[in-house]
Amino acid sequence: MRRIDLHFEDQTYPVWLGQRCLDGIVDRLAALDATSYHVVTDQEVAPLHAQPLVEALAAHGMVRMWTIAGGESGEGGKTLATVGTLAETMLTAGADRRSVVVAVGGGVVGNIAGLLAALLFRGVRLVHVPTTLIAMGDSVASLKQAVNLSRGKNLLGCFYTPTMVLADVGYLHTLPPVQVRSGMCEIIKNALAVSAENRTLLEGALRPDARYDGATLERVVEAGLLAKQRLMVNDRTERGTALVFEYGHTVGHAIELAAEGVITHGEAVALGMIAAAEIAWKLGHLSAAARDLHYQLIARNGTPTIMPAGVAVEAVISLVRADNKRGYLEAHADQVPMVLLRDLGEPMLTDGRPLTLVDAALVFETISMHLVSETQAPRREAGFR
Amino acid sequence: MRRIDLHFEDQTYPVWLGQRCLDGIVDRLAALDATSYHVVTDQEVAPLHAQPLVEALAAHGMVRMWTIAGGESGEGGKTLATVGTLAETMLTAGADRRSVVVAVGGGVVGNIAGLLAALLFRGVRLVHVPTTLIAMGDSVASLKQAVNLSRGKNLLGCFYTPTMVLADVGYLHTLPPVQVRSGMCEIIKNALAVSAENRTLLEGALRPDARYDGATLERVVEAGLLAKQRLMVNDRTERGTALVFEYGHTVGHAIELAAEGVITHGEAVALGMIAAAEIAWKLGHLSAAARDLHYQLIARNGTPTIMPAGVAVEAVISLVRADNKRGYLEAHADQVPMVLLRDLGEPMLTDGRPLTLVDAALVFETISMHLVSETQAPRREAGFR
Repeated sequence: MRRIDLHFEDQTYPVWLGQRCLDGIVDRLAALDATSYHVVTDQEVAPLHAQPLVEALAAHGMVRMWTIAGGESGEGGKTLATVGTLAETMLTAGADRRSVVVAVGGGVVGNIAGLLAALLFRGVRLVHVPTTLIAMGDSVASLKQAVNLSRGKNLLGCFYTPTMVLADVGYLHTLPPVQVRSGMCEIIKNALAVSAENRTLLEGALRPDARYDGATLERVVEAGLLAKQRLMVNDRTERGTALVFEYGHTVGHAIELAAEGVITHGEAVALGMIAAAEIAWKLGHLSAAARDLHYQLIARNGTPTIMPAGVAVEAVISLVRADNKRGYLEAHADQVPMVLLRDLGEPMLTDGRPLTLVDAALVFETISMHLVSETQAPRREAGFR
Repeated sequence: MRRIDLHFEDQTYPVWLGQRCLDGIVDRLAALDATSYHVVTDQEVAPLHAQPLVEALAAHGMVRMWTIAGGESGEGGKTLATVGTLAETMLTAGADRRSVVVAVGGGVVGNIAGLLAALLFRGVRLVHVPTTLIAMGDSVASLKQAVNLSRGKNLLGCFYTPTMVLADVGYLHTLPPVQVRSGMCEIIKNALAVSAENRTLLEGALRPDARYDGATLERVVEAGLLAKQRLMVNDRTERGTALVFEYGHTVGHAIELAAEGVITHGEAVALGMIAAAEIAWKLGHLSAAARDLHYQLIARNGTPTIMPAGVAVEAVISLVRADNKRGYLEAHADQVPMVLLRDLGEPMLTDGRPLTLVDAALVFETISMHLVSETQAPRREAGFR
């Protein structure tokens, strides 16, 4: 396995990256010499990847597997209550301060296990074993841990540094194509908002059928991690320049929540990026060519460019208003702080932060006009406010 | 108000200390220029201190008051569920990243509000307005925030630095004497385990009726804070030398939980210190005179030296075994890591930490022999293992 060290201000941790490397994963976990290993996973990943890991690790210590109800799309289970229940059961099973929490799964599992590890005994060791592209190439390169509240995603959480990340791109071959595309959307996000190299890489590599070989996946994962590193090295809490990674997330998070599991996180972010690009173009900041590249990359990835049928624009806009970027800037109730681009890789800044206040009415109009199919467009009389 | 700056490694915050200084408290809160103030309190403190503060602060911004069910003895409500419910309701009321959480109450309120502030938006500003002696002279001088699990106290939490502490010793005159004695127990703990100056101060000042004038209270509060500062300046997470502040807490926490609200935290810690002193004496580490000073100071404070009737030693020992210091050391299932003293102000060390592994059987025997009245002693046949 290849080692990539991530440096986020004073925090650093290694990502070990390889293909078909269960032995390497087990060896590195065993070397932590834990009193017990607590593998947190979900129902989809448990039989595929968590169970084999648990069996191999059992030769090196006490191992327990905890399966969270619902699969990777289970944002609904990403609650403080889930964290509390896991903590109770782990403690009953003998977890102590020298235990290690191992998150085997995608971003949802990583977030639940991450917040749990941060809180249990005020912090036990945390190892991420990501099994989705989005987790491997994006989520694990962050100190942010969080769960959802009913009014929005990731509103409760903290910053916590994992001990290491063990990433086997071989796991990605078991993913349904829709999940690979979801991960690619975050890489596309970094390509549009941060890193020109990634644009070149993606324009060559993206394919709608989402069938990639291992070498390509390793390149994509590394590109994703290094894009995160580039801004987080000076902004580990992602409250300054690294807020640019929230590109597409204001509208995207809201759509994801309103769609109640019907679309993936990445698909939702893609829709959020389209909204942000259309808004930036309407306001005269972004060129038509840059805006159109959004559609091209997203289409080349095989990802929808409109919301699923049945998602109400009113529900989306209500969730947009509760977005957790609110409060970074002094915003009126009818303004939404969003990441907007002035050019590819160049966010617009307000008070040094890559955020722009946008009228909620313009967001509503843009979603209605560009993210809803003709037949699904909301009746105007039921519209905004 | 007098300013005392606390320095815990790279973290620092001011404690403003005064008497009858509501105006000073309001001015300092107003200067934070929050989008909204969220005063967290409990049913006992709400009418006495929180409501007047809310009314005075309302001239300076949007203020909401959130009253937690149960009073200061309500450890049962110090759960992750309470934190989650508060977060949901605050968000619905418009809380954002520029809001301030104001904890008006004792240690329980401070812990719930502290963890909430740490988690909401991954951290909003936190101000402690302590209304008990234990909170004012001890709890607020810590970065530790936590809630309970069913198997023990403070097992879920994190480290979070408050923006400031605003302490009015005038609030302490409304406390029932049992609460003043409870706070004094933590000061006694610091006197026995850390600070010789505090022993001198306490031997002169302690009185069983718990009636103290404001000037004495200010001296006691300052002494408590400075004892914390002394060790935490090099150990902000309290996992090294500052673990000495856990003196009396291994057995104490367990008794507090087993007694289900019948005794105060401080009373429970006093009992835990007696257990620790008896154990250290039995093991030949502590002199009889130093052990006896434990009884003398606790008695001079008017605090019981045996457990309340009806608390089962078996229940206590079962909770002792789940104590959250487990895991600092390699301990067998029948060993308990405890803070023991070799002399006043001098903890015994293991691997550099002020912890000693003690046989659970000896802990059981000590509690049975010294903390239970003759008529309440457990039948031996129902005893340990």
